[in-house]
Amino acid sequence: MSDNSFGKLFRVTTWGESHGPAIGCVVDGCPPRLELSEADIQPWLDRRKPGQSRFTTQRKEADQVRILSGVFEGKTTGTPISLMIENTDQRSKDYGEIAQQYRPGHADIAYDLKYGIRDYRGGGRSSARETAMRVAAGAVARVMLKTLLGADVKIRAALTSVGGQMIDPVRWDWDEVERNPLWCPDPQSVEPWEALIDSVRKDGSSIGATVEVVAEGLPAGLGAPVYGKLDGDIASALMGINGVKGVEIGDGFAVAALRGEQNADPIKPGPQFESNHAGGILGGIATGQPIVARFAIKPTSSILIPVPSINSVGDAVDVRTKGRHDPCIGIRAVPVAEAMIACVLADHLLRHYAQCGW
Amino acid sequence: MSDNSFGKLFRVTTWGESHGPAIGCVVDGCPPRLELSEADIQPWLDRRKPGQSRFTTQRKEADQVRILSGVFEGKTTGTPISLMIENTDQRSKDYGEIAQQYRPGHADIAYDLKYGIRDYRGGGRSSARETAMRVAAGAVARVMLKTLLGADVKIRAALTSVGGQMIDPVRWDWDEVERNPLWCPDPQSVEPWEALIDSVRKDGSSIGATVEVVAEGLPAGLGAPVYGKLDGDIASALMGINGVKGVEIGDGFAVAALRGEQNADPIKPGPQFESNHAGGILGGIATGQPIVARFAIKPTSSILIPVPSINSVGDAVDVRTKGRHDPCIGIRAVPVAEAMIACVLADHLLRHYAQCGW
Amino acid sequence: MSDNSFGKLFRVTTWGESHGPAIGCVVDGCPPRLELSEADIQPWLDRRKPGQSRFTTQRKEADQVRILSGVFEGKTTGTPISLMIENTDQRSKDYGEIAQQYRPGHADIAYDLKYGIRDYRGGGRSSARETAMRVAAGAVARVMLKTLLGADVKIRAALTSVGGQMIDPVRWDWDEVERNPLWCPDPQSVEPWEALIDSVRKDGSSIGATVEVVAEGLPAGLGAPVYGKLDGDIASALMGINGVKGVEIGDGFAVAALRGEQNADPIKPGPQFESNHAGGILGGIATGQPIVARFAIKPTSSILIPVPSINSVGDAVDVRTKGRHDPCIGIRAVPVAEAMIACVLADHLLRHYAQCGW
Amino acid sequence: MSDNSFGKLFRVTTWGESHGPAIGCVVDGCPPRLELSEADIQPWLDRRKPGQSRFTTQRKEADQVRILSGVFEGKTTGTPISLMIENTDQRSKDYGEIAQQYRPGHADIAYDLKYGIRDYRGGGRSSARETAMRVAAGAVARVMLKTLLGADVKIRAALTSVGGQMIDPVRWDWDEVERNPLWCPDPQSVEPWEALIDSVRKDGSSIGATVEVVAEGLPAGLGAPVYGKLDGDIASALMGINGVKGVEIGDGFAVAALRGEQNADPIKPGPQFESNHAGGILGGIATGQPIVARFAIKPTSSILIPVPSINSVGDAVDVRTKGRHDPCIGIRAVPVAEAMIACVLADHLLRHYAQCGW
Repeated sequence: MSDNSFGKLFRVTTWGESHGPAIGCVVDGCPPRLELSEADIQPWLDRRKPGQSRFTTQRKEADQVRILSGVFEGKTTGTPISLMIENTDQRSKDYGEIAQQYRPGHADIAYDLKYGIRDYRGGGRSSARETAMRVAAGAVARVMLKTLLGADVKIRAALTSVGGQMIDPVRWDWDEVERNPLWCPDPQSVEPWEALIDSVRKDGSSIGATVEVVAEGLPAGLGAPVYGKLDGDIASALMGINGVKGVEIGDGFAVAALRGEQNADPIKPGPQFESNHAGGILGGIATGQPIVARFAIKPTSSILIPVPSINSVGDAVDVRTKGRHDPCIGIRAVPVAEAMIACVLADHLLRHYAQCGW
Repeated sequence: MSDNSFGKLFRVTTWGESHGPAIGCVVDGCPPRLELSEADIQPWLDRRKPGQSRFTTQRKEADQVRILSGVFEGKTTGTPISLMIENTDQRSKDYGEIAQQYRPGHADIAYDLKYGIRDYRGGGRSSARETAMRVAAGAVARVMLKTLLGADVKIRAALTSVGGQMIDPVRWDWDEVERNPLWCPDPQSVEPWEALIDSVRKDGSSIGATVEVVAEGLPAGLGAPVYGKLDGDIASALMGINGVKGVEIGDGFAVAALRGEQNADPIKPGPQFESNHAGGILGGIATGQPIVARFAIKPTSSILIPVPSINSVGDAVDVRTKGRHDPCIGIRAVPVAEAMIACVLADHLLRHYAQCGW
Repeated sequence: MSDNSFGKLFRVTTWGESHGPAIGCVVDGCPPRLELSEADIQPWLDRRKPGQSRFTTQRKEADQVRILSGVFEGKTTGTPISLMIENTDQRSKDYGEIAQQYRPGHADIAYDLKYGIRDYRGGGRSSARETAMRVAAGAVARVMLKTLLGADVKIRAALTSVGGQMIDPVRWDWDEVERNPLWCPDPQSVEPWEALIDSVRKDGSSIGATVEVVAEGLPAGLGAPVYGKLDGDIASALMGINGVKGVEIGDGFAVAALRGEQNADPIKPGPQFESNHAGGILGGIATGQPIVARFAIKPTSSILIPVPSINSVGDAVDVRTKGRHDPCIGIRAVPVAEAMIACVLADHLLRHYAQCGW
Repeated sequence: MSDNSFGKLFRVTTWGESHGPAIGCVVDGCPPRLELSEADIQPWLDRRKPGQSRFTTQRKEADQVRILSGVFEGKTTGTPISLMIENTDQRSKDYGEIAQQYRPGHADIAYDLKYGIRDYRGGGRSSARETAMRVAAGAVARVMLKTLLGADVKIRAALTSVGGQMIDPVRWDWDEVERNPLWCPDPQSVEPWEALIDSVRKDGSSIGATVEVVAEGLPAGLGAPVYGKLDGDIASALMGINGVKGVEIGDGFAVAALRGEQNADPIKPGPQFESNHAGGILGGIATGQPIVARFAIKPTSSILIPVPSINSVGDAVDVRTKGRHDPCIGIRAVPVAEAMIACVLADHLLRHYAQCGW
């Protein structure tokens, strides 16, 4: 079943709960002889780490990763790579009430309906804390992609809207993304977004967002018909990020309003494409164009504004979720999305080698 | 790798090309002792069958399904169910030019880039003809779900927009869906859509659309954290339908503009939910509410309007795609989407039994 | 679950019952651009075909294979290869009594205990008829191995004992294997075995046997620790052949009586090995030596000599199994074993390319 | 590929090298609400622990297991269970020479041929140290089986021969197995075996052995045709234990010398079986009889007696393997085999629930 694994050949299994002693992952299938150390992983974890600005949760986690296996004298050996991060700042008292009541929009009630038990501390397994391990695995995937494909591989994401306020794509600047705490690519959107997020946080509320991921420098041919499609796997990977409710490839929902000639990406000798409505994927297979995906992420469900709910014995209660929460979980989803796409591409690269590498 | 299989426990493997002798699928993992015959499958195939109205391709296929294994004296035996449909109306001559040139928006070039070979006849494996087998498998999934869960299980889809013209959800009528050739749930949208589709077809063009799928009567608990999520599998299943470029669960992209209190689904004793922004899924697990998904499908890439492209030796050509094509592939995606969701739910039901059924 | 599939990257799914309309398989993951036609598969099926000598069942099956997908203009396309054989000589009347009683040693009772239903005609899914599709898939694997690795790849099997009468390995002659109907490699064993089998057949009985498979010309490195071991997969593949009760790699059970220095295979520069007690596999990974496996197969359970059993309502009965049966199923297991090993090796070759091919 | 995972629904992934900081495993798919703590696992690890008698390696490992996730307030939650053991007694200096030369019979050369790199410290990933995690996972499987099926489930193994000296099965006594350091079920074999092992150890040699595993109290119906066979999975699990070269089910290789009526297990009303030549499995499916498997394990390859080999630059050397080694690895394979069978049965129980539990 492998409910806690993803990828077929570059296979990542994560484990751990928000307030358990540690979280971790096992990366199986990674090629041997790649140079890999904690220093290749830690910077990506630091990008995602909580408590770095007033726009994310104030939980302080060192998020210090350790490589426990699979690397010898600085190189991968082809055996499973075990990565672990100890949890250090679990203030479980913040979550006392969660034990007794279901937070609307959270997985609390769903876990109880399914399993008849749940680790309520900080959301347990359903907490976004688990995404730290996706980022760690994504860092390994990046090392693999760079080593096998060269330095031109770029997998980057940015926040493209907050609360319905879109960036202007004309002003897109990847350098700007690294300069502001919101991973915003449009210099003129940073201030209004900061003001909006400050405002919803003061209200004890939260706000939705959209994120765009772009992968460049990948070879054509990744992906496969008809259920091993690259876009199918990207959709699954992004929809699996906590709070995501919609995923698009290329022009996404906009194509529903188009006529055939408007949506066509003319091909020129090369082959080159004159446009990229398709987001780099045709029939589930990469064409060599940039792979473009986008997703919508809901406002954090943990808010101070009371919402009607029930407690664990079924009586009506009003739930206000205290504790330290991200007012806009879309922000920290940016490095997670990059990591998930890196893993999907690493997986499809190995799958491509397997069938078509002869 | 299993690029041509989907589902983990209710596992469907399809095979076949558009213009090969036949197409087929193998359904493995189906529970024993279900009453099943061709009569349970054929009606669903007939709904998808080409050539039923002027709004779909005029290719005439009987799409007569045969059960070749796994059923004995009218009941499933627990062994793999092999289903096959012979292809009867392959006018390969229509496709002579495809052999030499890449149709923009089609998988032609992607297959060649990946495999160095392609069966160009009618699009080969990338043709939507393959989706007939998804519908067949979906019919088996429906029998399983009804037998195990009862008659209240309903998995239905409808077209919700054509070329940007949305239905009015207030007028949604599931009976209407069965009465018009466009699977439109809004009686007042049928005529304008027919006019629009007639118009694009006369122009030799095509048009995009959106589809909504609703699954009701399923138990809470289907799905699993964190990579076995029900919404992740739905996203993958729908994104894998030919031409789909975007997928939403519940409110989908609309959540990106909401604040936490707007997006919350308050819970009442029962448990019941006062709204369904979440589309019936929290933390990847079904809550028992209707499961709601939506997707966008691009305009058919096969159009008579010339689009610049290249031929197989790399020279520039203008491609006009003759042959018999759906002007709006969104229409025939409706029964396919229902079938895919039926298969995903059948799979997750067995997965739920496995882990939580004791 | 995929109970009817084997292999991970070279993935074979079989379907069909002994007396259904047809049997078939789907080979997914096969590399593109291999030259493949029915003529590459049919000879291997003919080797396994029933009714070729008085030592195998007299059921007459043409076993004519058809390629239904995945091959275009004589070459594989990378899409799933569907193979089908129609059943033509099902004398179901022979099996009338099986419906009501459980044949000892057969899977009849096990199927009913598991599924609560069984297709009793000719053993249904548990019949060795299914192994025809393994042979067909094995033929595709052979084409793949030869194309990718060259003509030196040899995967051959032979019967090494019947009823406890062992060959003398000193007289092993691969050419002899093709000259006698028992796949016996020792010219001096053929006559005594024929006499023995004739004798048990006249008694209405049957007899056990052992088979050895040798694979040569494969590169070192196939296989993987610690659960993807080549010997683990070989063991599973051979144990899964109908009637097999024991599997050995290299010296097999004989190693249990040895001391370390007796069992060691000294290594010489090259690397070369001075002996092959290990059967070509160390730590689950191929060393480049010949891969040697052996298995024991029980006497056919279908015998005319009455054995106490029960009928389907639980009453005691004596069962005599009429119909047309192999007196020594070990004989026809020879081509099946070769095919299984070919499939396992094809799978591991692709797995090796995936992880170590960069 | 999942080369480091086994099981489909009760899925175990192990990681770690002999001389890395730790070894561990992740058990995914375990049902929720089982009572589980370290105290359920530790006793099984203690049985396998090195250094407990003069007949096993003198490496001292506390083998203290920690549960890092998946258990809350003493119960499983349905999320992945992460188990970890820190390595404490790695005397890497013992292994200095391994870095430069290939120990015959070990995986050293195979790893280098495959990966082009190996962690030579103590055998790295190929060390039997990894089997500690199989025992830990097996303990979880035992808890699951007892909770779901009741206390009658028994999975036990014993050493049945050393160096060709067989026990007398007539004297089989399960209580005796727990009383002697060799897991020998025959009181009269203990002393001669001890003398034999002492003798080979003094000679700087090692000795082979056979082990039998018996599982009782399991329901009929576990397993599946035709590639999901219970015996196929048992064969793979046992062959995957370090040093195993042969596997048998029921009468195993002895069936090759039998006639049909000798091998038949007559059935009596109940159903009951008058004998168990089949080892409890027919057609890949459990009949409810005891499941009986047997395997042969080679003499430890690490011996003080010199064996010709090559070093890492390809020159001839004589290898004498110092360090602390088991003179008979068959001994410590006993608890490992029990654990593997427990895992296989746990997996097949969930698989059975999935398909046939409705």
